[in-house]
Amino acid sequence: MREVGIGLVGAGFMGRVHANAWRQSPLFFNLKCRPTLAAVAGGHASESSEFAAKWGVLKPSQSWERLIKDPQVGLVDVCVPNYLHAEISIAALKAGKHVACEKPLANTITDARDMALAALGAKKGVRTFVWFNYRRCAAVSLMRELIQQGRLGRIRHIRAQYLQDWGRASTPHSWRFDSKLAGSGAHGDLNAHLIDMARFVTGDEIVEVCGAMEAQFIQERAVVTASSKRLGLGAQKSKRGAKRQACTVDDAFLFLARMHNGTVASFEASRMATGNKNANHMEVNGEFGSVKFDFERMNELQWWDDTLPAREQGWSRILCTDPSHPYIDHYWPPGHVLGYEHGFISMAADICAVLAGGEPEQPLADFVDAYRTQQVLEAAMISARERCWMRTDAI
Amino acid sequence: MREVGIGLVGAGFMGRVHANAWRQSPLFFNLKCRPTLAAVAGGHASESSEFAAKWGVLKPSQSWERLIKDPQVGLVDVCVPNYLHAEISIAALKAGKHVACEKPLANTITDARDMALAALGAKKGVRTFVWFNYRRCAAVSLMRELIQQGRLGRIRHIRAQYLQDWGRASTPHSWRFDSKLAGSGAHGDLNAHLIDMARFVTGDEIVEVCGAMEAQFIQERAVVTASSKRLGLGAQKSKRGAKRQACTVDDAFLFLARMHNGTVASFEASRMATGNKNANHMEVNGEFGSVKFDFERMNELQWWDDTLPAREQGWSRILCTDPSHPYIDHYWPPGHVLGYEHGFISMAADICAVLAGGEPEQPLADFVDAYRTQQVLEAAMISARERCWMRTDAI
Amino acid sequence: MREVGIGLVGAGFMGRVHANAWRQSPLFFNLKCRPTLAAVAGGHASESSEFAAKWGVLKPSQSWERLIKDPQVGLVDVCVPNYLHAEISIAALKAGKHVACEKPLANTITDARDMALAALGAKKGVRTFVWFNYRRCAAVSLMRELIQQGRLGRIRHIRAQYLQDWGRASTPHSWRFDSKLAGSGAHGDLNAHLIDMARFVTGDEIVEVCGAMEAQFIQERAVVTASSKRLGLGAQKSKRGAKRQACTVDDAFLFLARMHNGTVASFEASRMATGNKNANHMEVNGEFGSVKFDFERMNELQWWDDTLPAREQGWSRILCTDPSHPYIDHYWPPGHVLGYEHGFISMAADICAVLAGGEPEQPLADFVDAYRTQQVLEAAMISARERCWMRTDAI
Amino acid sequence: MREVGIGLVGAGFMGRVHANAWRQSPLFFNLKCRPTLAAVAGGHASESSEFAAKWGVLKPSQSWERLIKDPQVGLVDVCVPNYLHAEISIAALKAGKHVACEKPLANTITDARDMALAALGAKKGVRTFVWFNYRRCAAVSLMRELIQQGRLGRIRHIRAQYLQDWGRASTPHSWRFDSKLAGSGAHGDLNAHLIDMARFVTGDEIVEVCGAMEAQFIQERAVVTASSKRLGLGAQKSKRGAKRQACTVDDAFLFLARMHNGTVASFEASRMATGNKNANHMEVNGEFGSVKFDFERMNELQWWDDTLPAREQGWSRILCTDPSHPYIDHYWPPGHVLGYEHGFISMAADICAVLAGGEPEQPLADFVDAYRTQQVLEAAMISARERCWMRTDAI
Repeated sequence: MREVGIGLVGAGFMGRVHANAWRQSPLFFNLKCRPTLAAVAGGHASESSEFAAKWGVLKPSQSWERLIKDPQVGLVDVCVPNYLHAEISIAALKAGKHVACEKPLANTITDARDMALAALGAKKGVRTFVWFNYRRCAAVSLMRELIQQGRLGRIRHIRAQYLQDWGRASTPHSWRFDSKLAGSGAHGDLNAHLIDMARFVTGDEIVEVCGAMEAQFIQERAVVTASSKRLGLGAQKSKRGAKRQACTVDDAFLFLARMHNGTVASFEASRMATGNKNANHMEVNGEFGSVKFDFERMNELQWWDDTLPAREQGWSRILCTDPSHPYIDHYWPPGHVLGYEHGFISMAADICAVLAGGEPEQPLADFVDAYRTQQVLEAAMISARERCWMRTDAI
Repeated sequence: MREVGIGLVGAGFMGRVHANAWRQSPLFFNLKCRPTLAAVAGGHASESSEFAAKWGVLKPSQSWERLIKDPQVGLVDVCVPNYLHAEISIAALKAGKHVACEKPLANTITDARDMALAALGAKKGVRTFVWFNYRRCAAVSLMRELIQQGRLGRIRHIRAQYLQDWGRASTPHSWRFDSKLAGSGAHGDLNAHLIDMARFVTGDEIVEVCGAMEAQFIQERAVVTASSKRLGLGAQKSKRGAKRQACTVDDAFLFLARMHNGTVASFEASRMATGNKNANHMEVNGEFGSVKFDFERMNELQWWDDTLPAREQGWSRILCTDPSHPYIDHYWPPGHVLGYEHGFISMAADICAVLAGGEPEQPLADFVDAYRTQQVLEAAMISARERCWMRTDAI
Repeated sequence: MREVGIGLVGAGFMGRVHANAWRQSPLFFNLKCRPTLAAVAGGHASESSEFAAKWGVLKPSQSWERLIKDPQVGLVDVCVPNYLHAEISIAALKAGKHVACEKPLANTITDARDMALAALGAKKGVRTFVWFNYRRCAAVSLMRELIQQGRLGRIRHIRAQYLQDWGRASTPHSWRFDSKLAGSGAHGDLNAHLIDMARFVTGDEIVEVCGAMEAQFIQERAVVTASSKRLGLGAQKSKRGAKRQACTVDDAFLFLARMHNGTVASFEASRMATGNKNANHMEVNGEFGSVKFDFERMNELQWWDDTLPAREQGWSRILCTDPSHPYIDHYWPPGHVLGYEHGFISMAADICAVLAGGEPEQPLADFVDAYRTQQVLEAAMISARERCWMRTDAI
Repeated sequence: MREVGIGLVGAGFMGRVHANAWRQSPLFFNLKCRPTLAAVAGGHASESSEFAAKWGVLKPSQSWERLIKDPQVGLVDVCVPNYLHAEISIAALKAGKHVACEKPLANTITDARDMALAALGAKKGVRTFVWFNYRRCAAVSLMRELIQQGRLGRIRHIRAQYLQDWGRASTPHSWRFDSKLAGSGAHGDLNAHLIDMARFVTGDEIVEVCGAMEAQFIQERAVVTASSKRLGLGAQKSKRGAKRQACTVDDAFLFLARMHNGTVASFEASRMATGNKNANHMEVNGEFGSVKFDFERMNELQWWDDTLPAREQGWSRILCTDPSHPYIDHYWPPGHVLGYEHGFISMAADICAVLAGGEPEQPLADFVDAYRTQQVLEAAMISARERCWMRTDAI
């Protein structure tokens, strides 16, 4: 059996999610190419060592620069803040390594274009991937299959909202509120997922942004220093005069769009939609049927079949845990539901399938594909700032 | 157009519900026999007069005895406490009047039998009806149609619960807590509905009660006198030493049963199921499909079609407001939902259809039919008290 | 007791809804001013006569011009297609009659302005009302109360969608698809409700439309003639060569907006959102809490209280049938749910309260208030067509 | 760090679930005692070898008898069919090993008693555990905490149903349909979970079974031989004359019960409740509040707080993914939901905590505790067969 050494760049939340995915995928899938956790490069040496020990990574790396040159590393998995994606990914590609990069592809359209070009210019056989994990929820994959099989007919509407509420005023400052590091706020973080999902399930492209609006509700946030953390002082508790830092990203971002086939789409991302924790919602209405998804109930797809007799039409809550549902036969019996991490495990398996020369169960996004998503993000940003409509092919 | 004069006996909550139904039915249905509110007999004269003035009843009656002799009254509508059902209904039948009686048919099996016999012995053409209003929820009627059309195949399970929570300790005493007046507590009041619905939707009969349990959680309750009411004193606020009266009925009653065709059924009624207001639930599982209903979402039927491809099976939430749904074409357009009172309006219309010599849209319960429901109530009562199984044909 | 004679102009679906509301309101509310159905003017004489006979209207009128001069008519209730609203309402106001007009106020901003001016210029004591019935759903009123009491804190987001699906391609042509008669399609019909609700629940005003998009999916529809109707031929069945007529209104209309207090709002109306029958949705997110409403479950309000301990926070499904909920003490006990028509009944009662010199239980929209809603509709229309942002005070 | 060698007896579905749990627990919990997969004994040698290779078990064992003597094995994890639980567990205890046994404890009350006695008689420090995994759903643990903190007051009702539908007529025969191997059908398999959960969340004991009923809908099933499997022939497709085997267990089992504190409880288990995949439902109603759980939405707890103002009371859908919810701080951020396997991972971690001399986050069931659950199963079985009530202390 072929093996591919995974080199993780990033040892934070996403690093753990990815490490778990690489470890679990061979246990649940019959892989033709087996991933091994070859190396990890965290923010500093101790972080890398601890992470390596915990997650069974063969070795900590002193830096991502070293890691990408490590001959045991065949695929560089980039899960650091967005502003670093381009530099690391391009260097890895130049070193002839496959790259799997977290979303959004980049903070700027320029970076994203450079990455796509680097992917196109890479050595033959070198592959790129972007971690749009929600594609691999059984319910989202099923949504795509129903649409691709024509069960919805022509698509009229997409209604997409990714709502969270952790951005409340009391949340302390972090890199995510700094436009230099994060590029944007909810827009790049959450709308990137929605745009990718809309493209994935329909197979159609967004051609024009028809109005957009960004909102920033909180202008500055408390800085929680290492010492105040040690003292157990959160942002709220810190004494008057505590340092505060300006926020420079959107808290919410909405836009309207038109797709090539005439679909009317709306997108909204927010970190201040109280009561919504990870509510990645999408509804698609077609001529013959409709589908709805909400990640907070990720095992379910709502399906409306308009070809049934009127008396029997209804929103059918499909519990996507049947062996006939995408990816499910790899896991547990019907009704034994899956969680957040399984989308990553299935994606790791699909990546391995591709690296072994096979096909993924569902299409994967590579850098070129993710660049199209980035174009939409960019067109929306311009639309909001210029108060105009914006064609995506003008990006 | 023929007219039928309605004589209401009872001017309380149920009196209002029925008066409304008689008034509304001709506005929404093309009736061949038009109901008019001919007379009303409440608890005392002023109540009758006020009710008559408000609801457009032609005249208040001094007593139910007078009312049933009134030549303008063609149908006596009995909506007084249960212990009076038999006396009034039988007298009305003897007077040659149609009778529509509130459920449960009676407090005792003896009374119920007398009523059924009186119905059988009534003058030719005299009809009886029992207000099992839930039969006329579009969703319940649809449940019946799907089962009758064989869409569920053989029925395996019925799971029926009627849950309310107004019986909390602070609720003052009333006739409903006195076994002499009410017969039983939740059992007769709520299980009567469930038993009727189970029989209605399946067309099958309960042959044996296989275990039953009654529970009384609250032993006595405050008596709220007229004077304490005037002073605005509720049960909770009344001073120490306030009179309290023993409760002599069940607060909850559960039983298991077997139906003729082998269906396994469970029933539960409670007034102390905190958080449930009027949760009349029923789930039916068959070989080829299942249905679920909850009155708190009375416009919806949950339908599972097990003959669909596994990938598309789900609990389908049918919003029963399409013209193809039972009774709906008489009311509003799709999505314009109905309420509690519409079951009564549709039942009033069905009664009028029968009185005009036609067929109701859905079967109605008469006294003989309701007697079968009463037999089950009685068998369950005996089962609970004797701690044994009890065949209903032994009643 | 004072009486007010109602003169209905329009005898279609909305005429029935209003007639029912005027008839029912005195049965459920203690009114200081009693409505009587004095006259009705339908499309032609026979329609008026039949309607009058069915609904107990004192007399059919030959024309609306006659009706508004009828001394027995105190309030003219306008429920005809939008393009007639202005002429009839203004004439009625000039005749010194109160006017209750269906929504949207008018087809054009000019008409709407004329109506508002006519209302301002009417004889002292003459009142105007616009039938924004959803304000009187208990859940919508409760939404408003929670917001007004500060329970949500500063409002960040409004997410409003009014989705229907009757506009499918097979639906025949009607006045609703003709811009001359209907003004617009889903926009005026459905967004009018959403804008009014957003203004009602927040007490805030929309100051700017920040992008808008209209879509027309179906370009022409079959004309169903009276003769094809008689033959039982629907639009789909009519033979080739059957007459088809161009549609000149939007099927869907979306826009983004900003409110005075900084709230970010999105609006969407569609007649082609398959699976949605009358899905009037609204979600409002505030600093301290959120609320959600969906008319298809009109008895329920979803409420998130962010001030509870995190462990107990959840979307609470409030079944708005408690006597403590708006309007409920006039109807049935807890759990005995209401339907579509009850919003109109409660509104009729509130109108009577105002006419008797009292206060409505919840604020009513008059022509001046509805004109503000119309300004937003107009600003959105311009935004969509000019592809720009549009301040509402520029209308 | 201490290590404990896990010896898995069983390499089927449950073997995989447990192996995964032991592997994952150290990655998500800070364990004081680290589990290692020391040995596995499957049905035959090749199964054990393949399992060991896949799941990283140090060595396959030739037999469970060898495995329990293996000095590297500190805990024997029993996940074979029920009829083998007693023999293996008792032998392991005698060998001085900790034992973690799948539920139900045993097929017969005699076996269960022997197991409990063996546990009590084991060497000091030797511990037993039973895999009642649902205790460790965050929602179920939260249910327990709310009840234990008195938030529900006195408990009135428990309504417990564990519904599946895989027992349809077309399902081929297996050990689960043979009473010699499985003991009972849905009863032991599913009611065992419900009884344990009822005891766990309330801390109360069932004192009497007040009626019970078992049902067997399918009398015989096709035998799918290894060769027909190879040919891709399922039970349905196999040719006429294919061997069929009698089923000797219940398909559904219902019973009513009373708990020590007066709670009225109902239990139902079924494998033929069409549309229910793994619907482990429980509702508990108390004086001051209620809770509801359904495993198909395992990340959610429905909570009713009856002490809130009536206007704000509702069924609150708590998404149990906040760090303040039981076990959640070990996994992902809010809204990043968990799945079926996480209950096992958390249980493995709790077992390790106990083995290291600490406390589990939530109470664990040992053999003595599980024996109480078995007494209830037995009392219910007798009640159903004798058609009488049955005290559990008479077992």
